[in-house]
Amino acid sequence: MRYQLYYWTGIPGRGEFVRLALEDAGAEYTDVARVEGDRALQPFLDGKHAGAPPFAPPFLKVGRTVIAQVANILHYLGPPLALVPKSPARRRQALQWQLTVADAVAEIHDSHHPIAGSLYYEEQRKEALRRADIFRRQRLPQWLGHFERALVASGGRHALGQHSYVDLSLFQLMRGLEYAYPLAMKKQARRLGHLRALADQVQQRANVARYLASPRRLPFNTKGIFRHYPELDG
Amino acid sequence: MRYQLYYWTGIPGRGEFVRLALEDAGAEYTDVARVEGDRALQPFLDGKHAGAPPFAPPFLKVGRTVIAQVANILHYLGPPLALVPKSPARRRQALQWQLTVADAVAEIHDSHHPIAGSLYYEEQRKEALRRADIFRRQRLPQWLGHFERALVASGGRHALGQHSYVDLSLFQLMRGLEYAYPLAMKKQARRLGHLRALADQVQQRANVARYLASPRRLPFNTKGIFRHYPELDG
Repeated sequence: MRYQLYYWTGIPGRGEFVRLALEDAGAEYTDVARVEGDRALQPFLDGKHAGAPPFAPPFLKVGRTVIAQVANILHYLGPPLALVPKSPARRRQALQWQLTVADAVAEIHDSHHPIAGSLYYEEQRKEALRRADIFRRQRLPQWLGHFERALVASGGRHALGQHSYVDLSLFQLMRGLEYAYPLAMKKQARRLGHLRALADQVQQRANVARYLASPRRLPFNTKGIFRHYPELDG
Repeated sequence: MRYQLYYWTGIPGRGEFVRLALEDAGAEYTDVARVEGDRALQPFLDGKHAGAPPFAPPFLKVGRTVIAQVANILHYLGPPLALVPKSPARRRQALQWQLTVADAVAEIHDSHHPIAGSLYYEEQRKEALRRADIFRRQRLPQWLGHFERALVASGGRHALGQHSYVDLSLFQLMRGLEYAYPLAMKKQARRLGHLRALADQVQQRANVARYLASPRRLPFNTKGIFRHYPELDG
């Protein structure tokens, strides 16, 4: 089975959560827009395909099936990629974790874009300073404190007691936040020992390490979800 | 099976998407906090229960299992409540719809709380005026236009070709937006014929109508996700 991943070129963004799962599992996939350009996404966004149309990328094409929404894609990919425990109860827990990561990611995006995704950062910088200040002091510790506690509750090494797509997403969340908010993350570091160890451990997995060293891995930048603007980091 | 729903008292909020499914299916459930008070939620939020702890309500207790995140709860409840088609492909489409509704709901919340959930509206009114203006003119037509087109693509009457939890959520989304943004919704009305007909049809379902007329249905108010502040409606 060859998977076709559709996501904007130029940013890791939400597509990266899917890419990491495909790479870690050694799955065969095409990153379609990086071959054909971003215009390859448009027919799907215009609803020119059977099934529920995606509101936004990423989406995954598997044969004739198109699946959108990161958590939905990973819920689908988990079993064939052996990236989720087999029991329905554990798959449900994986989905719950992933949806909570997705909520955190949306808030992280809005910390630099509190007014509108359609405006440039510079057009909402004043509001971003106010939002990012509260994000750093209140929400960042809440989100990461929650994930750290939940990780400890499941044994400390893996979100689900064994390697899964959730660990890969937590790795990306941690690396993204360390890029965007290095000072704030340094302040949190001592409270997040298990999350940090998990991220390091994911980074050393053979397929992940190979991927991270390849040109397929896009660097974080100030066009994506995780953006580094020093003034927002306090 | 008696379900226990945990959600804050006093607002329909995200709990309402689960409540509507339980009510429409005639399921037996307890709305725990409305019996025991909001403090009933705290042990779960503190992680004093086996399994992945919820980051926030709503969560559902089924026997000893606790399930959090609206889309995850509805994905779980769909089959036993006969509120989702049986095939895995259709369940996946339901989850995709629901996750897109969830994304819209988060944006609707932030249209009146663009800076922080921990501040009062009055403390971020200026930023809310700016965000709501763009929300009304750009995002509202994007979200609802997407749902309308997706609805038409699946036959026009139901999100999934038959009644499902997604239709119930679309009903709640439409009623919430009509409450919060009546003028903006009036401007959109002609473009949203199928969504509006779907909402009316859901409202007339016997169990839903009975529920809406009962004291169990909490009115929309200015403490929840869908808030009516006339100045934000243009």
